[in-house]
Amino acid sequence: MNPITGHRRHFEDLTLGETVELGSVTVTRDMIFAFAREFDPLPFHLDEEAAKRSLLGGLASSGWQTGALTLRLLCDGFLNSIAAAGGLGFSDLKWRQPCMAGDTLSARATISALRRSSHHPELGIMTLDLSVANERGEPVMTMSLANLVEARKATP
Amino acid sequence: MNPITGHRRHFEDLTLGETVELGSVTVTRDMIFAFAREFDPLPFHLDEEAAKRSLLGGLASSGWQTGALTLRLLCDGFLNSIAAAGGLGFSDLKWRQPCMAGDTLSARATISALRRSSHHPELGIMTLDLSVANERGEPVMTMSLANLVEARKATP
Repeated sequence: MNPITGHRRHFEDLTLGETVELGSVTVTRDMIFAFAREFDPLPFHLDEEAAKRSLLGGLASSGWQTGALTLRLLCDGFLNSIAAAGGLGFSDLKWRQPCMAGDTLSARATISALRRSSHHPELGIMTLDLSVANERGEPVMTMSLANLVEARKATP
Repeated sequence: MNPITGHRRHFEDLTLGETVELGSVTVTRDMIFAFAREFDPLPFHLDEEAAKRSLLGGLASSGWQTGALTLRLLCDGFLNSIAAAGGLGFSDLKWRQPCMAGDTLSARATISALRRSSHHPELGIMTLDLSVANERGEPVMTMSLANLVEARKATP
């Protein structure tokens, strides 16, 4: 048994097309201010009056915060139950609607590709299509994430 | 004068190919633990022993943290000096090397495309190629970011 991954599912246990509901998170005004102060200190993420005058017409989360909260849902709802070994990158991240203060985001992941790593015989590469919607069912963010997953058996 | 953007540079003031050095940030062990607890609670970001046994052989930041820290450098070093109006999305984010505890990341942004928005006559879309390197000059992360920027004059 792998000392880190324990009894988690490994690369061979994953199925193309598998979809996982990742749960939800409500994004509060204070969460938006706290994240923006640390990582995205733009006027319209830091001040309600500036936010009202901005393109979005009100206080919205940093897009990167929407992503980080999605990552948290992904860890708790999926990655921590498999032998995830690290991310490689993502493609086509799109913020489709702003996440306004008070919105509740729900996320879903679908395994859209599975292949063995050509460099690391003991690893596979899983591509996840992530989609995030608000409580009205409107799309907020979509992206594809490539993640390494340990295999039970190395390729010969 | 726009009440939010003040005397900041606007879309018409930006130049294709313009490169901005965004400064640097040192990523400490405590920063890695704090971010991982909140957003990326995987064993190898939370525990030094688990990190040693992981693919990276030691404690490394969440890739999403590397991104968020880069966003902070981008805000302080560039976006807050222009009439930035929000992000649209990212493409081709790649984590090229892990950012290990103690590494110092430096970031650079190059304006790789400038075009007017077809939906919003008062906005332009700026594409930035971002590259992040460690103190040894090794590439850590690259990505392209599309950002809205207010124009001085709307298209007719």
